[in-house]
Amino acid sequence: MSRCGTVYVIGIGPGERSLLTPQAGDVLSRCQVVIGYSGYLSLIADLTEGKECYGLPLGEEAGRAQVALDQAQRGRTVGVVSSGDPGIYGMAGVVLQLLEAMPEDQRPEVVVVPGVSAVTAAASLLGAPLGHDFAVISLSDSLTPWETIERRLAAAADADFVIALLNPKSRQRAWQLDRSREIILRQRTPETPVGVVRNAYRPEQAIEITTLGELPAARVDMFTTVIVGNSQTRCFQSRLFTPRGMVRAS
Amino acid sequence: MSRCGTVYVIGIGPGERSLLTPQAGDVLSRCQVVIGYSGYLSLIADLTEGKECYGLPLGEEAGRAQVALDQAQRGRTVGVVSSGDPGIYGMAGVVLQLLEAMPEDQRPEVVVVPGVSAVTAAASLLGAPLGHDFAVISLSDSLTPWETIERRLAAAADADFVIALLNPKSRQRAWQLDRSREIILRQRTPETPVGVVRNAYRPEQAIEITTLGELPAARVDMFTTVIVGNSQTRCFQSRLFTPRGMVRAS
Repeated sequence: MSRCGTVYVIGIGPGERSLLTPQAGDVLSRCQVVIGYSGYLSLIADLTEGKECYGLPLGEEAGRAQVALDQAQRGRTVGVVSSGDPGIYGMAGVVLQLLEAMPEDQRPEVVVVPGVSAVTAAASLLGAPLGHDFAVISLSDSLTPWETIERRLAAAADADFVIALLNPKSRQRAWQLDRSREIILRQRTPETPVGVVRNAYRPEQAIEITTLGELPAARVDMFTTVIVGNSQTRCFQSRLFTPRGMVRAS
Repeated sequence: MSRCGTVYVIGIGPGERSLLTPQAGDVLSRCQVVIGYSGYLSLIADLTEGKECYGLPLGEEAGRAQVALDQAQRGRTVGVVSSGDPGIYGMAGVVLQLLEAMPEDQRPEVVVVPGVSAVTAAASLLGAPLGHDFAVISLSDSLTPWETIERRLAAAADADFVIALLNPKSRQRAWQLDRSREIILRQRTPETPVGVVRNAYRPEQAIEITTLGELPAARVDMFTTVIVGNSQTRCFQSRLFTPRGMVRAS
């Protein structure tokens, strides 16, 4: 249907404006309607001035995607903003899932604009913990059975992946991080270095380097990324890095 | 040593200028010396005009890091450019590995500037294949024993991770991708959707959606990212996405 507009799912990066890409800024400026979690919309308020904005609370991801598709069906150019990269547990998957359910001739175009992800943002503040093979696991069991998450934790620990844990804790989910730590400890020593980054590239940024043994003492909330080193990850002067073997091999 | 300068390890994103962050651009403009793989330096030639530039060939990662640290020890502000994100198999780990080996009082400051990674760039062009837990595995066995890579492939396939394969093939490494496919096929059906992205956000960009069964027919080279869906990944209208369950649960 030629009357259909376009939905841009836009990664705005971790928070700091200097990590929002020019592409994201350009696309935002072309949007007539901008939709997002109210907290993220406020981060980019100056970029959406004069536009129709819909701020929906956390948890209403499907609602946000639906508003976006509805608006685009009316021929409008719509931006859905997602913090970090929109494809990593972000809005891109939700929009595409709803798009698939629509009749083919009524589907608006959907374009995903990548961003600096929460995972790489956290890693950069720690040094280079993701320097070798890694797994990214969300500890939120609100939409994934906890058994699936446990199986992934065990597999990643066993195969010596560096492990990035997203959504490690919230007010409603208090025990998942401790349980994850127990599972990883079956394969790794308590001395395994762990990086804890809260609010990466945001005003309340806090970086903590600890170990798997000491992790329970770290301050962790829903704006935190926890990166657990593998058997090769090293720590010095508050920096973590996982060597690829490059230097030793040459 | 107060005479020491700073090494910035800078992610320049996948290639297209609009995905290079303002932070990366700002930092580059402050550098007196810029070091990188010659192919990447040419991508940002206009940003390094008038600066001292060292272009070293692929494979000389340790050499590049060494030049950077040497220059910073002389008090200079040095940029090491890395495509994508510098922390994912990039230069950040190499620089930190050499930094650790230096006497503590002679170490320059090292700052990592994150970028849009090759993995999320490829994913954005496919839709949202990384919408749920995923593993990133490099198939380059030049510095990692192949047995370790096989173990990770098997673990990731078994625990139903979406799997992003980097460095899938080169002139010297022809069989690793086929072997990886066989390992993943032990746990997944031949119909599993697979996205193949060559030269994401570069002039020769090519996007192919295929299946695990048909993967051998896809064109894959060293500038390709291969993303293998998990049991939940869906494909429609040349888009891949992995639902998080969000929509169904609401």
